Formats: sequence, C-alpha cells, structure tokens
Amino acid sequence: MYKSPSNNNELDHLISLLGKIPGLGPRSARRAALGLIKKKDSLMRPLANALSGVAENVHPCGICGNLDINNPCHICSSTKRDVSLICVIEDVSDLWALERSGSYRGLYHILGGTLSALDGVGPDDLNIKNLIERASDAKVNEIIIATNATVEGQTTAHYVTEQLKRFDITISRLAHGVPIGGELDYLDDGTLTTALNSRRPF
Amino acid sequence: MYKSPSNNNELDHLISLLGKIPGLGPRSARRAALGLIKKKDSLMRPLANALSGVAENVHPCGICGNLDINNPCHICSSTKRDVSLICVIEDVSDLWALERSGSYRGLYHILGGTLSALDGVGPDDLNIKNLIERASDAKVNEIIIATNATVEGQTTAHYVTEQLKRFDITISRLAHGVPIGGELDYLDDGTLTTALNSRRPF
Repeated sequence: MYKSPSNNNELDHLISLLGKIPGLGPRSARRAALGLIKKKDSLMRPLANALSGVAENVHPCGICGNLDINNPCHICSSTKRDVSLICVIEDVSDLWALERSGSYRGLYHILGGTLSALDGVGPDDLNIKNLIERASDAKVNEIIIATNATVEGQTTAHYVTEQLKRFDITISRLAHGVPIGGELDYLDDGTLTTALNSRRPF
Repeated sequence: MYKSPSNNNELDHLISLLGKIPGLGPRSARRAALGLIKKKDSLMRPLANALSGVAENVHPCGICGNLDINNPCHICSSTKRDVSLICVIEDVSDLWALERSGSYRGLYHILGGTLSALDGVGPDDLNIKNLIERASDAKVNEIIIATNATVEGQTTAHYVTEQLKRFDITISRLAHGVPIGGELDYLDDGTLTTALNSRRPF
C-alpha cells in the first residue's frame, strides 16, 4: 500500500497521478513532484497547460490513426507523400521512429497494438478493417508490414498479410539482420541465423 | 538536438516539458506522452488539474520549509509534536522519509540543500539564519543534524553545528553503521570502519 508521504491530500494526489505515468514509479513520482514544485513557473504551470491543451486538441487521425491536431493528420493530408505506399505499424511511437529516420516518404497505418490471445486482443480490436478498405484503393501499390520483430508483432503481421492477399498489391516486410553498429558477439542466435540466411552479394 | 517526433507543435511542446521532469528523458517523455493520451480522462486531465492545484495552493512553510497548503505547515502547527526537538534535514524528501519511518515526533527544519563551493551555494543560500533564530527559543532542548552522509551533507552538518554551539542545547547526529538487512560483504569500507568503531555492547 502506498503510504502518504506529505500528509497533504492535494500533494499526495499529484504524486499518485505522477506515479501512473509510464516510466515513473512511486519513488520517482515523489522526486518528480518536488522537482516540479521547485520550478513552478518554468515547468509546473506550463506542463499543466500543455496537458490540458493536448487532451483537448490532439486526436487520432481518422485514416491512419496518427495523433494530430488536424484530421486527417499532416501526413495523410500532405501532397508530398507517396500515396502508393502504406507502412503498417503497431503504434504512434513506431511512426515517430520511422519519421525520425527520415527515410520513408509514404503513408502509414497504425494498428493500435498486436493480436494477443492472452490479453484478449482479437482482429476486431485492432484497426485492421480500415486497412483493408485502404488497400482496396487503386492508388495503393505496396503495403510494408513493419510490426515489431516480437512473437506478437510477427503473429499480427501474418494475420494482416493473409487479409491483404486478395488484393493485387505487393506486400513486403522490413529486413531482419545485424543492426548498424551491432557486434556479432552480442547478437542473439535468431538474429544471427536470419542475417546469415538473408546474406546479400557485396 | 531534440528532433521533433510528431511534427505537431502542441504535442512536441508537451513531450519537451515531460522530458524536463526529474526521472524522465527524451525517450521516456515520448512514451509518457503516448501513455497519457491513451488515458485522457482517467489520467491526463486529472494530472493537469492536480498540477495547477498544487502550483497554486502548496507553499513552503514559513517556519520549517516543509511543503503544505497551510502556513505554518501541519507539523509546525500540530499540538502532538515534541517542540523541544528539531531535526535539521536537506530537503522535503528527507522529511517524507523520516515521517514514513514513523519513529520521529519532533519538529523539522529544512535547509533547502547543502553548502557547495562548486555550485556556488553559500550559507546565505540555505535556510540557516532561520534555524539559529529557532534554536534561541528556550523551548528547544535538542537539535538533530540529519543531513545526508555525503561529503556535502557532512560539510553542511559541521557548519551548522558550529553556528549552534553558542546555544545551551544538545546537538546530535544520526548514527552511522550497517543498514538493517545489509550484508557486510556489500558494504563500503567507510561504513564498515564506522560501524566497527561505534560498536555497542550487546
């Protein structure tokens, strides 16, 4: 049981809410609360406003599921993106990671998670129906399945691929192999095996 | 340089503010922002309100420096505490730690940090003048110096002790030794030496 540190309801309530933020536990929530109080004007009040603002104005894009103040989002409504290419990912953070890499200029489709029998997540709980609709658009040439290389991610990838087979489009997936800067000695056997089997001419 | 993950000013601003919370970095701030957006009603809006509320209503106690909605704080104004005893600590988190232990019933005095020549923190930057005033009160019998067992904490303890010598009160400090549950093999030499030199009859 969480023991009240400050005997002060308002402060305790803040600490318990901070402790629910992914990445913060009870101890770091206490530290965070004190750090925030010490920076009331430069951090605490601006953060309160930013939280309210984003809660009010940021919503999932009706097409791809990206978070944006506009709907459709800035990627779906951009005229500079390659609309023949859709990259299927699990979550918004994957979209951010791909955008940071700066190497992808197509559209996205966010599933909102992975299939998981254990957690009771079935196909209807993911944004798959929408993807099938998008795939039926004649403009789409290729769909890149970029779910995570985990068991759940790969299961989901297989399911999505099955659903898309009936369309006359290329379905591809990200290459597996040695990460750039990776040392063979530290790699797991699965990655090494895949990298060896998928070897390419120099 | 922090690269905009979402190409959305409002969301980026929130992420950069979250990244300034002690304990969160840029990556965990992104994760936190997504986690918050997924729990808009149960976490994000309540957190925004709690932050505003605490920023508005919680202030340092004019006597001891504790954070509270009342001034003097609930400890200084309590009739159940032993007013002859003052425990001198560095920060509010130390007060919380001592209150959690449930073994102290006196008053506190929060210095607000430690003396540090490197960081340019001198005696006037700490809440020491107030402490000397409180020590001159005839009701006070003992002052426990409970700064951290770090070099800065002990330097500060020595300075504070010097300042309090002229009063006719007992000045004590926390015992050093083997922590409860601690294994000798994992303790540093300094702690072991202190524990040995301060040994007590069984």
